Amino acid sequence: MLIVMKPQATEEDVRRVCRKIESMGYRPHPMPGAQRTAIGITGNPGPLEPAEFDTLPGVAEAIRVSKPYKLVSREVKNEDSVIRVKACPERSEGVGDSKDSFVTFGGRELAVIAGPCAIESREQAFAAAEKVRKAGALLFRGGAFKPRTSPYSFQGLGEEGLKILADIRRQFGLAIVTETIDPENCDLVEQYADVLQVGARNMQNFSLLKRVGRSPKPVLLKRGMSATLEEFLMAAEYILSEGNYSVILCERGVRTFADHTRNTLDLSVIPAVKHLSHLPIIVDPSHGTGRRDKVTPLARAAVAAGADGLIVEVHADPDRALSDGYQSLFPDQFAELMAEIAAIAGVLGRTTAQATTGVRGSGLGVRG
Amino acid sequence: MLIVMKPQATEEDVRRVCRKIESMGYRPHPMPGAQRTAIGITGNPGPLEPAEFDTLPGVAEAIRVSKPYKLVSREVKNEDSVIRVKACPERSEGVGDSKDSFVTFGGRELAVIAGPCAIESREQAFAAAEKVRKAGALLFRGGAFKPRTSPYSFQGLGEEGLKILADIRRQFGLAIVTETIDPENCDLVEQYADVLQVGARNMQNFSLLKRVGRSPKPVLLKRGMSATLEEFLMAAEYILSEGNYSVILCERGVRTFADHTRNTLDLSVIPAVKHLSHLPIIVDPSHGTGRRDKVTPLARAAVAAGADGLIVEVHADPDRALSDGYQSLFPDQFAELMAEIAAIAGVLGRTTAQATTGVRGSGLGVRG
Amino acid sequence: MLIVMKPQATEEDVRRVCRKIESMGYRPHPMPGAQRTAIGITGNPGPLEPAEFDTLPGVAEAIRVSKPYKLVSREVKNEDSVIRVKACPERSEGVGDSKDSFVTFGGRELAVIAGPCAIESREQAFAAAEKVRKAGALLFRGGAFKPRTSPYSFQGLGEEGLKILADIRRQFGLAIVTETIDPENCDLVEQYADVLQVGARNMQNFSLLKRVGRSPKPVLLKRGMSATLEEFLMAAEYILSEGNYSVILCERGVRTFADHTRNTLDLSVIPAVKHLSHLPIIVDPSHGTGRRDKVTPLARAAVAAGADGLIVEVHADPDRALSDGYQSLFPDQFAELMAEIAAIAGVLGRTTAQATTGVRGSGLGVRG
Amino acid sequence: MLIVMKPQATEEDVRRVCRKIESMGYRPHPMPGAQRTAIGITGNPGPLEPAEFDTLPGVAEAIRVSKPYKLVSREVKNEDSVIRVKACPERSEGVGDSKDSFVTFGGRELAVIAGPCAIESREQAFAAAEKVRKAGALLFRGGAFKPRTSPYSFQGLGEEGLKILADIRRQFGLAIVTETIDPENCDLVEQYADVLQVGARNMQNFSLLKRVGRSPKPVLLKRGMSATLEEFLMAAEYILSEGNYSVILCERGVRTFADHTRNTLDLSVIPAVKHLSHLPIIVDPSHGTGRRDKVTPLARAAVAAGADGLIVEVHADPDRALSDGYQSLFPDQFAELMAEIAAIAGVLGRTTAQATTGVRGSGLGVRG
Repeated sequence: MLIVMKPQATEEDVRRVCRKIESMGYRPHPMPGAQRTAIGITGNPGPLEPAEFDTLPGVAEAIRVSKPYKLVSREVKNEDSVIRVKACPERSEGVGDSKDSFVTFGGRELAVIAGPCAIESREQAFAAAEKVRKAGALLFRGGAFKPRTSPYSFQGLGEEGLKILADIRRQFGLAIVTETIDPENCDLVEQYADVLQVGARNMQNFSLLKRVGRSPKPVLLKRGMSATLEEFLMAAEYILSEGNYSVILCERGVRTFADHTRNTLDLSVIPAVKHLSHLPIIVDPSHGTGRRDKVTPLARAAVAAGADGLIVEVHADPDRALSDGYQSLFPDQFAELMAEIAAIAGVLGRTTAQATTGVRGSGLGVRG
Repeated sequence: MLIVMKPQATEEDVRRVCRKIESMGYRPHPMPGAQRTAIGITGNPGPLEPAEFDTLPGVAEAIRVSKPYKLVSREVKNEDSVIRVKACPERSEGVGDSKDSFVTFGGRELAVIAGPCAIESREQAFAAAEKVRKAGALLFRGGAFKPRTSPYSFQGLGEEGLKILADIRRQFGLAIVTETIDPENCDLVEQYADVLQVGARNMQNFSLLKRVGRSPKPVLLKRGMSATLEEFLMAAEYILSEGNYSVILCERGVRTFADHTRNTLDLSVIPAVKHLSHLPIIVDPSHGTGRRDKVTPLARAAVAAGADGLIVEVHADPDRALSDGYQSLFPDQFAELMAEIAAIAGVLGRTTAQATTGVRGSGLGVRG
Repeated sequence: MLIVMKPQATEEDVRRVCRKIESMGYRPHPMPGAQRTAIGITGNPGPLEPAEFDTLPGVAEAIRVSKPYKLVSREVKNEDSVIRVKACPERSEGVGDSKDSFVTFGGRELAVIAGPCAIESREQAFAAAEKVRKAGALLFRGGAFKPRTSPYSFQGLGEEGLKILADIRRQFGLAIVTETIDPENCDLVEQYADVLQVGARNMQNFSLLKRVGRSPKPVLLKRGMSATLEEFLMAAEYILSEGNYSVILCERGVRTFADHTRNTLDLSVIPAVKHLSHLPIIVDPSHGTGRRDKVTPLARAAVAAGADGLIVEVHADPDRALSDGYQSLFPDQFAELMAEIAAIAGVLGRTTAQATTGVRGSGLGVRG
Repeated sequence: MLIVMKPQATEEDVRRVCRKIESMGYRPHPMPGAQRTAIGITGNPGPLEPAEFDTLPGVAEAIRVSKPYKLVSREVKNEDSVIRVKACPERSEGVGDSKDSFVTFGGRELAVIAGPCAIESREQAFAAAEKVRKAGALLFRGGAFKPRTSPYSFQGLGEEGLKILADIRRQFGLAIVTETIDPENCDLVEQYADVLQVGARNMQNFSLLKRVGRSPKPVLLKRGMSATLEEFLMAAEYILSEGNYSVILCERGVRTFADHTRNTLDLSVIPAVKHLSHLPIIVDPSHGTGRRDKVTPLARAAVAAGADGLIVEVHADPDRALSDGYQSLFPDQFAELMAEIAAIAGVLGRTTAQATTGVRGSGLGVRG
């Protein structure tokens, strides 16, 4: 059920509808839009009676949602969500946190997240951060907690890695994107991260989805290795249903019979997501191909297909990386990639993100 | 690295080798066999020097393990692991827990786990339990915590469901197999379950794998929807590497293009697992096909292919099930299935499990 | 459209309906059953008017067929088709062709086809034939024309291979199953083969399907590597629509991400085919697994799942085979397999085929 | 084996090496390059002795080819093959055939093939041809022989369709790309087509591959629905090994579990092909997605990933198309697509093809 408010509805009208929903034992999800606010309802065991709502002041109509997902659907919110993440346009030691500047996902600008697979040491992380910042990226990736296929592989530096990431934010003004691997771990990671990453293997770890759904931090949700589009959107719905509307979807390749790449990057999911959902979607060409020489062509392709951004593995010295070195770009390759995607973004009337100061985004899914 | 002891090695010889391994900062995993004990080593960053060990008393040889998985491998333990779970051969109200009788996975007998997808109510659960017990099953399945694709679907009764399961054990003498969905939740579930189930979506939830690896209860590990055999065995390795050697693998279908079943049941994984690992493997023909009329033919096929058991959804009234009703067998169908697989088991020189009393299994992976 | 005749309809009634259909420019397909005859219609551009037929003498009713496939559907013919192929129960040099004995596909008996991947020489072929005959197989497989991934691989002996096969029939009384690779090639192959095999790569080679559809010989149609069930049945429909109703379906594994076998054998397709179609279905565990040690377990599983037979690669000296040696059974392994499947067939109330003499099958899809 | 000639080798030197190869019973494949000629050898049962060749005049070295494919490999011919097809830059009724102008695949220019799925009538075909010509396409697609999943679906107009295509070439100066479905059918189709298309379902129809390998016309080879990269290149190798080096590869989506598109378009195969082979590769976003609204985003992505061209379904009135209407673009959408890919081509230093007059391409794979 979705309650669509009239354009002239007041904040009190919206609050009244929300109270009504709560009094019935359900949960209201007000989603303000440019023209008007819609209020999603979750927690109801079956269809509700429109008559309960359409006589309340300010209500335009009460309509049924036809998809299994609700809050992520364009039926509930037609305009694109724009997710804002704090980032600094210029290196500004110590000043970074105080300035009110943002990089956005889902707007006109493409957002590029870059960095090594794992934080291995302060030196390695700083070397990568310097390179990606110089090439124009405003968000830094790097795993402190690494889900690895083998229990005997390097599992990340843990909190020490998070501290290094915090220092990188301070030093380079880069926003930090890093993975959280279970609900308890999230308590720690959200103290350090600007964006919480949920990995592909955890796309249906519903306990974790609920936990990040209660976090104030935006969430980067990677598509599972064999997730259908509906499962992908339902995983996002878990997060929104807990109250966190700042979800960035990420295509990272699916598992098929094809053996010339590590995964098969499914770029058709970009227009498919755009058609059904208001959420932004970015692409990970590094895991999506698993081979360094294919990262740049597929990164260009992702942008041309309409992706809202990229997440790319860059290592200052890929041949010595403790994980995924063979798919990490050399810094020079990354700088070239940034130039190429900027040009393709231009063809689509977009730009690559330059952090902007002080302007509040108008989208309703936006958070600081 | 694997330290193979001489047949005549004493317990003190084994302990001495373990202490030596610990003193090097690694973890010893003694795996007693019918003829002799082998000691796996984990935690070492690279190959160890055989000379460190082969002069110690009782050591036959120190050999390198060639596979990425170690403790699950036949290289480390050649004979089949037999996992024992307490169960009562006869309905024995109140006496169930005190009697020392067991059902086994991985031995000559097939173990059949049956019951509804989810525990919906005491009545529903008891009705199913009575039927499956009557048909000869000794283990009861039923979810109290259900991982569901949609946040708005029935998520299980929670602890109330666990209590119903405990009553079913008491009432019917059935051993309880139920799912745990995250590390914290495991604290609760292991108080009630006889076997902890890790679902397909959590096969690479490494935090959960480590947690059940520290549990005294056997673990039923379902293969992920797109897991390769190596990933499947590595997930089991996570559990064994924490010290819990009682792992039962479960094939439940993989995701392919084929659309005549919900998943494609991959029975070839049974001989493949048997070739590489000493762990038992059972099959879930209910999720593996997703269609009631295909459950029995595929259950027969699983047993013919060499599976060590089955886990089957049975509901006393499938048409009213809150989840997965279309793939649940009617009680009569289940009784027929039990008869058919008993006959096929006979062809392979096996039997369907009858709980046995008091005999301690000789396998080393065995736990009470 | 399907015209169902009354049980007491005369042959003339059937002919009259057929003439009526022809006069409308369409093609009649009379399918006699145990109780009554049904007449399928193909060639009509859209739905026909039942009134055109249901007033003709002997017509019970004219009904619409709801599936995209018609002639292969159980809607058109409810009882199982039983395909008969001439074979000799005993070695009978020179006498083989004159005796009127048959092996059947789709009845109570399982049919086993065995032999090498390719005919490499007279010696190799005769050695294999002797072994498989001795173990109880009544049909011999062996490629004279081999579709190979590489143009530089051994492509078969061609007509010389066919002549060797003819000699094997004469010498051992084995019926010959061999592959035809294009319409022109079929002119030659059908002179030698008892059953024409259409390979997986040619499952949607519609020119070839139409050609074998005009052959008097039964056709063994292998499922394509990524064919859905509907595509598989539609490929069979091509053959039936040309007038050849003697089609034996064959599951041989589909292509998935799984890498522990060459293909993933999809045994659930057996009950799925049985549900929708009256055609028999057999299984190829050799290509279906691609690994010798998995052939026997999966052969047992196929029979347990309800397959009507098997096609198995057996080579007298697998290590020297020019193709697919690693998946060919040794003769002793094959003899064991025959014993095991006979036992499992018994559980299902079936037997392994012993050629029977002189009895005409009652099924309507039957041809000599 | 590959014989690399010295830059200064004469034509007579090349002929001498070819005669030597023929005298050994093998087949020489001279592949002239910008710097020097290489001569591939096929038909040899095993490795040859380099000493047989490296003393002949003009021979630089004799080297072994390490891949299973030879003639398609960059080992044999390092520079990109450029395939030329006659086309007219301007509408030129009747004059088209006499002018010596070409569109190329594999050079700096992108080639766009457009038109309806099937030729349904002269009016329909001409309406589409006019639209695609106006939007800038120089090659026209349209099936006269259609491989259809159902024997009861429209199978194309046959030779009548080919005649319509010939008239379209005359009328609009468009080069004709149309499918051939079996060896015999090829005799007819090659009289009308400028490029012979081999469909995905026939990618391993080796009889057809050999037949088009003996045709003087270039071949558009579509990737099979579940073909690995190696199988795809081996299929092309069949064509080259018969002497036709003008092969254009085409990615058209592969079959996976994903259900939001008809197939999953695998754009990573573009850089993968470019790495291993000198052959051009284009993309079919129409079959690759199966949904009209995804064609343009994926067409842009294909060009951004480095494709040498596109093949796109355009219908003047898609809602009335007899096949694949839901994936055919409206003419206006196609015009927009042409503008967008031209812009993206520009970013990569490429252009969309404008037929060029009279210049002979320098590539060795080139044919008139």
